[in-house]
Amino acid sequence: MVSFRPGLPSNMILPDKPREECGVFGIFAPGRDVARLTYYGLYALQHRGQESAGIAVANGKRLQLHKGMGLVPEVFSGDQLSYLKGDMAIGHVRYSTTGASHAINAQPLLFRYAGGMIALAHNGNLTNVTELRSQLMAGGAVFQSSTDSEVIVNIIARSDRGDLKDALAKCMIDIKGAYSLVILTVDKLIAMRDPNGFRPLCLGTLDNGFVVASESAALGTVGAGLLRDVQPGEIVIIGKNGLESYQVLQPRRRSHCIFEYIYFARPDSTIDGFNVNQMRRAMGRVLAKEYPVDADLVIPVPDSGTAAARGFAEVAGIPFEEGLMKNRYIGRTFIQPTQDMRDLAVRIKLSPVREVLAGKRVVMVDDSIVRGTTSSKIVAMLRDCGVREVHMCLSSPPITRSCYYGIDTSNEQELIAAQMSTEEICRSIGADSLHYLSLEGLLNIFGNSRDAFCTACFDGKYPVEVVKPQEAGKYSLE
Amino acid sequence: MVSFRPGLPSNMILPDKPREECGVFGIFAPGRDVARLTYYGLYALQHRGQESAGIAVANGKRLQLHKGMGLVPEVFSGDQLSYLKGDMAIGHVRYSTTGASHAINAQPLLFRYAGGMIALAHNGNLTNVTELRSQLMAGGAVFQSSTDSEVIVNIIARSDRGDLKDALAKCMIDIKGAYSLVILTVDKLIAMRDPNGFRPLCLGTLDNGFVVASESAALGTVGAGLLRDVQPGEIVIIGKNGLESYQVLQPRRRSHCIFEYIYFARPDSTIDGFNVNQMRRAMGRVLAKEYPVDADLVIPVPDSGTAAARGFAEVAGIPFEEGLMKNRYIGRTFIQPTQDMRDLAVRIKLSPVREVLAGKRVVMVDDSIVRGTTSSKIVAMLRDCGVREVHMCLSSPPITRSCYYGIDTSNEQELIAAQMSTEEICRSIGADSLHYLSLEGLLNIFGNSRDAFCTACFDGKYPVEVVKPQEAGKYSLE
Amino acid sequence: MVSFRPGLPSNMILPDKPREECGVFGIFAPGRDVARLTYYGLYALQHRGQESAGIAVANGKRLQLHKGMGLVPEVFSGDQLSYLKGDMAIGHVRYSTTGASHAINAQPLLFRYAGGMIALAHNGNLTNVTELRSQLMAGGAVFQSSTDSEVIVNIIARSDRGDLKDALAKCMIDIKGAYSLVILTVDKLIAMRDPNGFRPLCLGTLDNGFVVASESAALGTVGAGLLRDVQPGEIVIIGKNGLESYQVLQPRRRSHCIFEYIYFARPDSTIDGFNVNQMRRAMGRVLAKEYPVDADLVIPVPDSGTAAARGFAEVAGIPFEEGLMKNRYIGRTFIQPTQDMRDLAVRIKLSPVREVLAGKRVVMVDDSIVRGTTSSKIVAMLRDCGVREVHMCLSSPPITRSCYYGIDTSNEQELIAAQMSTEEICRSIGADSLHYLSLEGLLNIFGNSRDAFCTACFDGKYPVEVVKPQEAGKYSLE
Amino acid sequence: MVSFRPGLPSNMILPDKPREECGVFGIFAPGRDVARLTYYGLYALQHRGQESAGIAVANGKRLQLHKGMGLVPEVFSGDQLSYLKGDMAIGHVRYSTTGASHAINAQPLLFRYAGGMIALAHNGNLTNVTELRSQLMAGGAVFQSSTDSEVIVNIIARSDRGDLKDALAKCMIDIKGAYSLVILTVDKLIAMRDPNGFRPLCLGTLDNGFVVASESAALGTVGAGLLRDVQPGEIVIIGKNGLESYQVLQPRRRSHCIFEYIYFARPDSTIDGFNVNQMRRAMGRVLAKEYPVDADLVIPVPDSGTAAARGFAEVAGIPFEEGLMKNRYIGRTFIQPTQDMRDLAVRIKLSPVREVLAGKRVVMVDDSIVRGTTSSKIVAMLRDCGVREVHMCLSSPPITRSCYYGIDTSNEQELIAAQMSTEEICRSIGADSLHYLSLEGLLNIFGNSRDAFCTACFDGKYPVEVVKPQEAGKYSLE
Repeated sequence: MVSFRPGLPSNMILPDKPREECGVFGIFAPGRDVARLTYYGLYALQHRGQESAGIAVANGKRLQLHKGMGLVPEVFSGDQLSYLKGDMAIGHVRYSTTGASHAINAQPLLFRYAGGMIALAHNGNLTNVTELRSQLMAGGAVFQSSTDSEVIVNIIARSDRGDLKDALAKCMIDIKGAYSLVILTVDKLIAMRDPNGFRPLCLGTLDNGFVVASESAALGTVGAGLLRDVQPGEIVIIGKNGLESYQVLQPRRRSHCIFEYIYFARPDSTIDGFNVNQMRRAMGRVLAKEYPVDADLVIPVPDSGTAAARGFAEVAGIPFEEGLMKNRYIGRTFIQPTQDMRDLAVRIKLSPVREVLAGKRVVMVDDSIVRGTTSSKIVAMLRDCGVREVHMCLSSPPITRSCYYGIDTSNEQELIAAQMSTEEICRSIGADSLHYLSLEGLLNIFGNSRDAFCTACFDGKYPVEVVKPQEAGKYSLE
Repeated sequence: MVSFRPGLPSNMILPDKPREECGVFGIFAPGRDVARLTYYGLYALQHRGQESAGIAVANGKRLQLHKGMGLVPEVFSGDQLSYLKGDMAIGHVRYSTTGASHAINAQPLLFRYAGGMIALAHNGNLTNVTELRSQLMAGGAVFQSSTDSEVIVNIIARSDRGDLKDALAKCMIDIKGAYSLVILTVDKLIAMRDPNGFRPLCLGTLDNGFVVASESAALGTVGAGLLRDVQPGEIVIIGKNGLESYQVLQPRRRSHCIFEYIYFARPDSTIDGFNVNQMRRAMGRVLAKEYPVDADLVIPVPDSGTAAARGFAEVAGIPFEEGLMKNRYIGRTFIQPTQDMRDLAVRIKLSPVREVLAGKRVVMVDDSIVRGTTSSKIVAMLRDCGVREVHMCLSSPPITRSCYYGIDTSNEQELIAAQMSTEEICRSIGADSLHYLSLEGLLNIFGNSRDAFCTACFDGKYPVEVVKPQEAGKYSLE
Repeated sequence: MVSFRPGLPSNMILPDKPREECGVFGIFAPGRDVARLTYYGLYALQHRGQESAGIAVANGKRLQLHKGMGLVPEVFSGDQLSYLKGDMAIGHVRYSTTGASHAINAQPLLFRYAGGMIALAHNGNLTNVTELRSQLMAGGAVFQSSTDSEVIVNIIARSDRGDLKDALAKCMIDIKGAYSLVILTVDKLIAMRDPNGFRPLCLGTLDNGFVVASESAALGTVGAGLLRDVQPGEIVIIGKNGLESYQVLQPRRRSHCIFEYIYFARPDSTIDGFNVNQMRRAMGRVLAKEYPVDADLVIPVPDSGTAAARGFAEVAGIPFEEGLMKNRYIGRTFIQPTQDMRDLAVRIKLSPVREVLAGKRVVMVDDSIVRGTTSSKIVAMLRDCGVREVHMCLSSPPITRSCYYGIDTSNEQELIAAQMSTEEICRSIGADSLHYLSLEGLLNIFGNSRDAFCTACFDGKYPVEVVKPQEAGKYSLE
Repeated sequence: MVSFRPGLPSNMILPDKPREECGVFGIFAPGRDVARLTYYGLYALQHRGQESAGIAVANGKRLQLHKGMGLVPEVFSGDQLSYLKGDMAIGHVRYSTTGASHAINAQPLLFRYAGGMIALAHNGNLTNVTELRSQLMAGGAVFQSSTDSEVIVNIIARSDRGDLKDALAKCMIDIKGAYSLVILTVDKLIAMRDPNGFRPLCLGTLDNGFVVASESAALGTVGAGLLRDVQPGEIVIIGKNGLESYQVLQPRRRSHCIFEYIYFARPDSTIDGFNVNQMRRAMGRVLAKEYPVDADLVIPVPDSGTAAARGFAEVAGIPFEEGLMKNRYIGRTFIQPTQDMRDLAVRIKLSPVREVLAGKRVVMVDDSIVRGTTSSKIVAMLRDCGVREVHMCLSSPPITRSCYYGIDTSNEQELIAAQMSTEEICRSIGADSLHYLSLEGLLNIFGNSRDAFCTACFDGKYPVEVVKPQEAGKYSLE
């Protein structure tokens, strides 16, 4: 079904979190079942997008594509994987930011242009897409989706004079913002990353082939080893003659998304040189130093707060306990509680262990608060269990600004920290105290690399100029 | 799901028939539930395409689209219809000729270009699409499907300087071949028909609104009355100020597809002035005059041979009987007989009435033979029932050439009449005699209009120059 | 899914018709793919039930079953058929009368009892099932469905002392009403028919094997030849030693359902010695003799009125025309018109051919009227087309009483002929005249066999005593 | 679909674990939406069975049922829940032990017998079911499933003389083995537990109503509080007059399943007085005392080994780390790696954090080993990451015997500990050392209650006599 109506909401995650846009994967491995390996690679990236999934394969002569709405195992059957034969492939999982959750926006997108067939999959968000689309339309271009990928391929099609590399390089000059792109032609696998390096993209080796992926954890899943990250401003072209690298744009000040470390990425991924799990543990340690609390227990909000909670407990010398259990079976079709059962909404996903909690003063560690809707319910549930004090500690600074580089952080009006002081938030969620990790403390964890990150959602320092969404809206295909 | 792999074969019809490409429907009726009326209109055109269905609606500000693979009732749920709100709509049912049976080729297609949003649905086949696509690609265009509609919208996008009518008129000059098009913008319903008038397209009124459809039967289904046919070379633009007509191209010699009367169209449709049922009856009458046969019974191959068989019986003075019964429940997922049960393949769909047939000399009337695979099985089945003689009469001349104007008649190598003489065919299907309606006899039925039809599949006189499919193939997106 | 909630209504047929309960099929053919042949056999009986379908196979050691809600091709995939391996099989298609449309009531039902495994499929309706179930429950029996089959197997289980034939014979004495049963044990195929012979059941040969089926048309579909009908009161047991027949009960006065000839059965079936198509034609002939009408055209309400209309036209000497076309694609999920589109309800399924009808005085032949809801809409639609006079002729007498032998004729309160005189009905449907075939005329068609039919729905002469449904209801499992 | 063919395997859990049979839930709460609360209750018990789910509700007059194959959110739509209206309900999630994974075996089962309507849902396994079924069949009973529930209801139906309580008490005397049963009549909710108390069953209060559930965690999810456990040998009958309790059988030596604490139950459940999470932590502590290991890190196999690993780390004074990450998205349709990708099978579900592990000597804590197939792959994967030593510690004694009380532990031939010595197992999985928790150590954790557990899978001391499965098989309905 291809429909322009809104998709079903995913219930895989607690609703009060920022949402990652996408994950990408690419593989060049003649002789291997590249479609199936891409399936496993996408599966390893499933946390980056649960709305749609797709795989395109190339066999030297043509491209084939299968994609659909849903989780990776829902979109692909064994038959469909078997049908996708080739030497290389790209794949994509998606959680929409620009472009509503429509089937037409599922990726990869497959195009024919004067240079041949080409498929693209994109993680990120172009900041000048509205302007670009508008210029292209003035030149006669037509658009069928609201994806950045469709804009990118139109730019390529207009500048490709027989050398795709040159066209890609030219395209890189035109497009602004965040992009980690994997591209497939009939005989090439291409990866490119914006000059700020907003979104992650890494490169690995598998036997005599290569793998690119949003996160290194996806390399391990298919048995590949991490070689290095794709550099900001770099284009990597992989074909039967091996790998060529072009540093097309001199990297600007690096602006890696710091939220990958705080919340998005898998703990077992290593991104731009830093292991996610270790960074989270370190955030918890710094948090404990910044805010010494007198308490009996440290508990995480699972799973995203677990590593930080453990770091906190280590430094604070307070016992760590799993005081909240998470039900892991929630799927896309889960029936939400009705209004009159609203108090059950959190209980269904998280349940407190009364034996651990009763009578205790508790430090509860979570990664972030976006709108604050869930936190107050968790605090209430803890008090129900006889918790005497709840000290909420967050391993991120207050989120006060929207992200325009590929993450859905809600509008600023919905961001609780943009509307209230920390004290007001604390009161609103009913905690005894509320502590945010300081931006300074967060950045220090990364040592000499402390300037290599985008912190716009905390401090409004946008590394690349942005267009306001209302303006963008008027050109959208929705 | 969007997939570039081959779709499932439809088993709705006996396999040995030419296949219609598409049916289109459009409605302008503010205040009415236009999506639901389009649903019924498409349902009335279901015989013209069972592979995919889609509806786009416009509400003055924006377009919405839902489409998918399958029959009309399979693609749309009540919820989806309710979601599609507007003042006007277009719809499409599809059976692929160009473009394999891929979801990406389902119509309508929805585009954004400099002129705004536009949706198209197309019945027919452009003969210069390869050349056009190639020119457009040289100018930087990208294609995501193998539909003619995508080519047409690209032409429009490049020539629309603020006046869509002018752009459409210009487009009409560029595109060659067969097209009956319905187009929707946010506030206009547009219909246009090629200057030869290959494929049917009619115009009706519904209260204060208008309806366009491939066949008049679809008008009746939604309660509309037939006003007239859209003229060859005409563009009709319908909006809140009423209907405007532009005779953009002077109609060439009319070349209405004569197979609409022989087989495709519904008997209750009236196309370009002739009622289909009456024409079929007349074909049978002429056939009986051309070939007087001494027999006991006239039986049709249901349902397509029924009207002609009745006409034959009238003139021949031989009793008409329903000697073959058709099972009407075969759906898309029907499991075909295995090789060792091949003799059951016809029995499952058609069953002979022994009581009627045993010991009789039978005239069996069918509309046409394409590859001849089914006819021999039917003849054998009749003989099994004790039929003494089988005289096969066809209400069309021998099909010896492929159609390039929107019908799938198979390759010429597969056309039995292109490979064998009538005598050889008769022997091959095991009949006692075989009679084709003469082309002369067929055309005479239409009286003064006898020159207004395309008869290329019988005599190779192609009204518009065609490009051979192998050449077309190399540009296709498959 | 197994659910006790009401199923979805089937839209496969015009709603104002009596509904057949079921079709059964059985095959004994070692070495053949019996599951697949049963699939085709059930497909040939699809008109007898579109709500659920099921197949059980036996391989000498065990039984296997697959069943589900929906049409035969919806319930079975190729994989499922391949999985069902054996030497013999039974199958069932169902349209519920007793027992609402619940998955739990889908047949065949598979049981284990002291005598081993047994599967049953049933067409008909026991009239003393309430009493039997109640006796069995008093003896400790438990029931999971509201099917007669479950009652029958409990009776068998309580009387089988090592000889299934004896137990079946004993069961035949206990159960009253209408039943055409097929039964499967691990090594036997059994057919039995009630002593009145209410519902049809015939026996055929296929190579060295045997086939039983509700209608002979299903024999033809699988390549079997008709041997004879199973006799009222007969049990047929088929195994590797061939066929044994037991005339357990002396047949009472035969009470074959006359509605099989009027409406239910396929025209190409021959039931208890009479070909259905020929009987329908004869009904039309008698009707024309009983009611000479001065008119220009005879048209049928397709498809059920077609044969009778042709017979009528022959005798009346009035031209026969197909003035109404039926859309054949309506499936189970078809979205019905909303209240404000009620006038479209008939147009969607039937459409008039204006060219044939305008200005004409028309005899419209249908098989029967149940509630009269559809007829008035058809008459109005004809008048819209300019028909001058509508003379409605029915090839059955007025239906004034409910059926308790396996057919859903609605409650007597809903039967229009039980509430109104013919004149009132004529006025209510807006016809110029209304003629019913006389019961005398109907029976005379069958010559010497004229007393061999149940005519209770016309004259209230119930051959077997019935229990009122309200009483039955209180024991039902719904 | 109701099918007797094998169901699809669930991939929700690592394959080398014992499998719980079922979870049950019951609620009496007039005025509340009992179906929806049961939905959430079953969702909280989803880990106890992922194969089928079902809910029956009673409204004082009748019972309604919906059930199907799949996870709770897959089986129920919002519409279906809305349809199930009543004052009380029971629900069931299932993982088959006896009875293959057939739709016919999904629970609850709904019956009508002389006493009225009754629905049952069962967790456990009767040890004399073969004998009972055989006796019942000798008395004329028929069976449609291979569930214990069908046997139980037949016993009740034969002994109920107007007092269901008496019939249940009589039934309790007849049936042997493990059962935690919830039963629903039109106006009563009943819970009963076998006199050994094999499987858990607890009782809670919700406003003025009551809830029974396999685990206390399900009480919390619906907002109910834990009152007490249902006692071994107790029948609890809940109706509008409140709760009645009958201690029908004097409890024998309690034989609570100790594997609930080791692996099955949720950590946040409290069963028969012991909190699961605390017991697991304690097992880890004892394990560390029994087997002091010199190592750098303690890591769990997530999630089942986490609590024990933490306990181990505390006592051993070795840092705890999450060295293995688990992918949580695997669903039922996940496509398993092909043979040539077998090395990926574990990587897809578990991935090692190289940064944590490289160069380290690791204690890896898991709950149990059944067949040993997965452990060797995990060990190999750790070594790939540069782990220097792997010391595998298990928080259970070696499993050497099959369970006959409701858990699928595989055949003894497949149990690695029944075939090999600990040393051989260690070699076979490639670990540097392998340590099992001693049975003595395990039991001591429970203090004075150390004799209240069934330990048959470790020591072969079966508290209730068992029938060998091969014998049972010959009566099964598979």
